[in-house]
Amino acid sequence: MKAYAATAADKPLSPSTIERRDVGPHDVRIDIAFAGICHSDIHTARGEWGQIPYPLVVGHEIAGTVAEIGSDVIKHAVGDRVGVGCMVNSCGECAQCVKGLEQYCLVGNIQTYGGTDRDGTTTQGGYSQQVVVTEHFVVKVPEGIELDAAAPLLCAGITTYSPLRHWGAGPGKKVAVVGMGGLGHMAVKIAHAMGAEVTVLSQSLKKQEDGLRLGADHYYATGDPDTFTTLANTFDLIINTVSASIDLNAHLSLLAVDGAMVNVGAPAEALPLQVFSLIPSRRTFAGSAIGSIGETQEMLDFCAEHHLGAEIEVISADKINEAWERVLASDVRYRFVIDTSTLA
Amino acid sequence: MKAYAATAADKPLSPSTIERRDVGPHDVRIDIAFAGICHSDIHTARGEWGQIPYPLVVGHEIAGTVAEIGSDVIKHAVGDRVGVGCMVNSCGECAQCVKGLEQYCLVGNIQTYGGTDRDGTTTQGGYSQQVVVTEHFVVKVPEGIELDAAAPLLCAGITTYSPLRHWGAGPGKKVAVVGMGGLGHMAVKIAHAMGAEVTVLSQSLKKQEDGLRLGADHYYATGDPDTFTTLANTFDLIINTVSASIDLNAHLSLLAVDGAMVNVGAPAEALPLQVFSLIPSRRTFAGSAIGSIGETQEMLDFCAEHHLGAEIEVISADKINEAWERVLASDVRYRFVIDTSTLA
Repeated sequence: MKAYAATAADKPLSPSTIERRDVGPHDVRIDIAFAGICHSDIHTARGEWGQIPYPLVVGHEIAGTVAEIGSDVIKHAVGDRVGVGCMVNSCGECAQCVKGLEQYCLVGNIQTYGGTDRDGTTTQGGYSQQVVVTEHFVVKVPEGIELDAAAPLLCAGITTYSPLRHWGAGPGKKVAVVGMGGLGHMAVKIAHAMGAEVTVLSQSLKKQEDGLRLGADHYYATGDPDTFTTLANTFDLIINTVSASIDLNAHLSLLAVDGAMVNVGAPAEALPLQVFSLIPSRRTFAGSAIGSIGETQEMLDFCAEHHLGAEIEVISADKINEAWERVLASDVRYRFVIDTSTLA
Repeated sequence: MKAYAATAADKPLSPSTIERRDVGPHDVRIDIAFAGICHSDIHTARGEWGQIPYPLVVGHEIAGTVAEIGSDVIKHAVGDRVGVGCMVNSCGECAQCVKGLEQYCLVGNIQTYGGTDRDGTTTQGGYSQQVVVTEHFVVKVPEGIELDAAAPLLCAGITTYSPLRHWGAGPGKKVAVVGMGGLGHMAVKIAHAMGAEVTVLSQSLKKQEDGLRLGADHYYATGDPDTFTTLANTFDLIINTVSASIDLNAHLSLLAVDGAMVNVGAPAEALPLQVFSLIPSRRTFAGSAIGSIGETQEMLDFCAEHHLGAEIEVISADKINEAWERVLASDVRYRFVIDTSTLA
């Protein structure tokens, strides 16, 4: 089937043809309608996160409809509107998998692209016409969310929903979101829908109007040092969606007693942490990776109930390379989504 | 009354005479029997944690008996065996004080020495014959713990008990204690009494016999790189009692999914933290400061119930300077306690 593939770290993506495995007893074949563009796609394709096998098709924000199901599939039916996120398999047997936390599989979950699936093949992602995935890792897209706006929820949505839930965002809680990008804008929408008081901490006030429209109660520029004085000791939870280095200690100083700051992106370099930023207020600094399959379904149901989708710009496949350059320049409000019908 | 005071950052402590305030309506005057020597005493007296007012009497591990009570005191009676720890006052009105978390008082708790009490005087610590403290900040030393072994519980005990409780140490939990010093040896005893499986992570195996005797199930040397391979992804909770810099990322790699590492000591310099040490297992890194007054009482009752006291070496006042040098050389098993009757 047709796809857009990376062929080398330093070359643009190009049209390509790939094979998918036959549909096994527990597999679902999905006609992909839309695939979101995540910054991770670019890091991976360009070899910035380690060596990868070329050619590689990236994309882990996949929405479409079920085209075919294996003989033992019970979770999905042909025609169902479904999604696939950042992982397509896990061991299924370790303590974390048994708890339903497949993202923390002790053997290692199998990522949607560039991973080695249990049959030994390299996984290929969503910039493609179809994908075959074991049924457990396919979630339902409820009525009420369009497939194009749903696609980014499979990564940007769940990656922010999971820590917001885990660390108790809700009424009476003050939540800050660092960064107003693909993940940040979803964190604002979701935290607001959960009932929290939401503050955006962005480098500048350029996207303030958007932030307030999407659900933020307050909007501050981290480029302004006064922000850190004004907001000292304020937040119960800070979700940091920025993968670039930030001043960790300055941000930790914004946490209230027992507050937690959770990173969902990892800067390449180590950040200097003053332990004294934590001790006097029993603060915590944590990391969180995507979310489980059960929680992804819960997130989609929550988004449908609250009429939340991503803010998107739909593009045709021939614009992918251009879109990547715009992602790198932070010139997108707030997620590019590829219309995969244009791959044909 | 007689005391041992620091008169300058670079001079040994010397015998001194200080005054205490008159006993107010809510005050308790305590005849100090024993005062523990904490590493913090040395840092503070030598000006390593900021400028301090000289002369200063340090000591925040105080055990003794009530000598006099104010007219409105209801919590204590003359003759009661009591203790005072690291703080002697707080605002009493902020959200944290109202919750009973005086150590996180939003106005700032008032430390037992070198602080400015609510009457404007500089607080003076326990290397002294008596102390006057507002009743709320005085706790009872239950029958079953000798006063000398109780003194170190007021800092070393509560500082480790509080995070062990807060982060859920108990049956089925794997707890590691980094450092086998004054705090570390109490963390081992307490975590063991709570029912956790306890591992000591010490630089060498020098104190292994002690560690196992005090309640550790396992003992590893962090100087041996194999330790980090063998114990990867193991612990639910790591209590780091070491104030010197450690390899944070190596220690974080020992945490299981959803595990927490809690520092109770703060190195002066910032530690390089790789956020990727946290994300793939939803680990947290946190700090914790002593414990509340209510929790300090709970800790003392717990220690009495489980027959736990500190391992101590009782010294006379004229040995304080020598003891400090031995503390700096880690040559103490595991806490020096000053017999304050020798101040006379």
